Amino acid sequence: MAEFSIDRFVDRYAERTSGMSASEVRALFAVAARPEVVSLAGGMPYVEALPAQDVLEVATQVLRDLGPTALQYGGGQGQLALRDRAVMLMAEEGVDADPDDVVITTGAQQALDLLGKIFIDPGDIVAVEAPAYVGALTAFAAYQPRFLTIELDDEGMIVEQLERAIVRGERPTFVYTVPNFGNPAGVTMSRRRRERLVALCRETGIPIVEDNPYGLLRFEGEPLPCLRSLDPRNVIYLGTVSKTFSPGVRVGWALADHSVIQRLVLAKEAADLCGSNLTMLLTERWFSDDARWRSALSGLVETYRARRDAMLQALEEHLPDTATWTHPFGGFYVWVTLPPWTDTTAMLAAAVERRVAYVPGTAFYPDGRGADRMRLAYCYPTEDRIREGVARLATLLEDDERLYRSFHRS
Amino acid sequence: MAEFSIDRFVDRYAERTSGMSASEVRALFAVAARPEVVSLAGGMPYVEALPAQDVLEVATQVLRDLGPTALQYGGGQGQLALRDRAVMLMAEEGVDADPDDVVITTGAQQALDLLGKIFIDPGDIVAVEAPAYVGALTAFAAYQPRFLTIELDDEGMIVEQLERAIVRGERPTFVYTVPNFGNPAGVTMSRRRRERLVALCRETGIPIVEDNPYGLLRFEGEPLPCLRSLDPRNVIYLGTVSKTFSPGVRVGWALADHSVIQRLVLAKEAADLCGSNLTMLLTERWFSDDARWRSALSGLVETYRARRDAMLQALEEHLPDTATWTHPFGGFYVWVTLPPWTDTTAMLAAAVERRVAYVPGTAFYPDGRGADRMRLAYCYPTEDRIREGVARLATLLEDDERLYRSFHRS
Repeated sequence: MAEFSIDRFVDRYAERTSGMSASEVRALFAVAARPEVVSLAGGMPYVEALPAQDVLEVATQVLRDLGPTALQYGGGQGQLALRDRAVMLMAEEGVDADPDDVVITTGAQQALDLLGKIFIDPGDIVAVEAPAYVGALTAFAAYQPRFLTIELDDEGMIVEQLERAIVRGERPTFVYTVPNFGNPAGVTMSRRRRERLVALCRETGIPIVEDNPYGLLRFEGEPLPCLRSLDPRNVIYLGTVSKTFSPGVRVGWALADHSVIQRLVLAKEAADLCGSNLTMLLTERWFSDDARWRSALSGLVETYRARRDAMLQALEEHLPDTATWTHPFGGFYVWVTLPPWTDTTAMLAAAVERRVAYVPGTAFYPDGRGADRMRLAYCYPTEDRIREGVARLATLLEDDERLYRSFHRS
Repeated sequence: MAEFSIDRFVDRYAERTSGMSASEVRALFAVAARPEVVSLAGGMPYVEALPAQDVLEVATQVLRDLGPTALQYGGGQGQLALRDRAVMLMAEEGVDADPDDVVITTGAQQALDLLGKIFIDPGDIVAVEAPAYVGALTAFAAYQPRFLTIELDDEGMIVEQLERAIVRGERPTFVYTVPNFGNPAGVTMSRRRRERLVALCRETGIPIVEDNPYGLLRFEGEPLPCLRSLDPRNVIYLGTVSKTFSPGVRVGWALADHSVIQRLVLAKEAADLCGSNLTMLLTERWFSDDARWRSALSGLVETYRARRDAMLQALEEHLPDTATWTHPFGGFYVWVTLPPWTDTTAMLAAAVERRVAYVPGTAFYPDGRGADRMRLAYCYPTEDRIREGVARLATLLEDDERLYRSFHRS
């Protein structure tokens, strides 16, 4: 009877699914997989740099010494020993924490989903940077908020815009920010802006969600205080080992007031009962050897720094004068602004044809903006591949510009 | 200013959180951890029976041969090779599937959450068995449905009740059932009821969610057809390796029409980007060796069968005549019905004092019923401990009955 129907459940889906669109990140995983394409798209860490023998040794230790625990269910908050390691990693960035106030999540991404679940009612306002991390927009969108977008400049979120919005009467449920080497813009919030944001949110009683996946991947300049360390009571802090160790273990966490953590743990248990004891214990063991994890992390930082340098140099060398871009002090990404006639979404197919990929800017705005922007990731390809990829991109942009000018000359 | 506040975000939480209560399962994990208590509460598989050396060997293979993949991000649908193994495991139960129609989830629990996310709008009706799996009630409750409860008898869900509800005008978004050795009741849906449920739902266009974690743990009787194999188009099927291998790898899956899978994959990516490639590949390798997984599974089935026998015998021997219980053909649980004056929630503290634990019946109803019921799990404790635990429970029940009668005699 319904044989011809493409989707027989089409009338049954929840309203929240109408906001769910094909994940651009996922589509690009497929593109990036073709070896002849230089992918400047995906934000995959360069896990090939990890000492494979050490990882194997740690996994062997866990299964040999803690096998039955590793293979069993655990509590929703996550292994205490791993929460201690999360506390240690946060201390590296000046954040003081109690392991009781930490919940381990499936990457920090799950913390975003669970925060959406416990905080967002349909129609609630969530303040985000513009551009913002696409995964946060997708996670929150499932709970049907209205997004309030706050522009970025070289000092990060323009807090004055948020202030004006609040004066206008907007009351965000929370403000979401990636203050260090943000995804996609690669900019870092200045100390002045950090202090102003924290003061504004404290005064107006608006919680801040500080997402800090890249903080330990700094190439230059002095670390700035985390928002959480400026205001431990009003800031919910998210961390992860996806960039400092491995995303394959799916270990992230949230640090918050214990009352928030209790709700996050209940939401976590409803979502998947518990994380994997095996990967939690493996991650705990990895970070138990100070020399090992610091040496592996330094190796990653040096690799990423060299790749960033290669990309910045190639952009300088190849890109037309009409393009501008950010200068990341750390992390994975450069954000390129192109002339206003550019449509990076429409251009992506042509780019892939020329064997280079990027993420179109529109992915990072909830409101359809960003067609003249693109995100370039330097984390995964080698320096030579980065140079080759940027050169390919440059010819595409030149051709696009020539085409545009020829139409507007005639 | 808010120093005295217990929960400074108390006015900010989403409405859906008002339905979230302390997970009884979690509270009982804590109780079960005390070695002097015989826990008949938690449904922990007996992972100690797994051949530890074999698991270590498989983990070593994965990290040695596939390290960079295991430690990297993956796609939201999960590793294809593992989806092939899921297809193989479903074929064991007579379910024919295409790996394209499978999404790997963090245990089947995450599939429940994602199904709630894509199907349930606030106020929608979800039909569940009474009693039902507490984790399903919790997962769905986050999306604020109204539960329609359908009673169970020894043949499983009383489908006639669902039929009458539909005639009354109820239109469930979906029907959720655990047809094989259900949690908590330990009963199995008869063939007659399976056929009737499938026909009813097909006619009325109501999807069925069939959750089958225990299907391969049968101790007696002939396997009955899965609902999915009776109606592949209208049944969404959930599977897991948590009971046939290990819950520590957090590997479950959903099988559904490809249009549903596409939405589940988007919801999965929004929830946590992807599962752990490491535990997915480890699970894939585990099930790649036919002799190995079959032998480990047979070992588990024999262990659980002996423990079920010990429990049924102990119940027969010790429990007062006023108690009745189910006879599970497989799985982990016996469901005990006590005299109507019993309050198993109130009695739990006294039980723990007498060094035995169970799950009170109210956990498994969305409407506060079940105070005179309890779930007993035989999966984890040894046969001696089971006998000891049931004996302790029996003295408690006898004392409770004596107390009740003394009050009502006077």
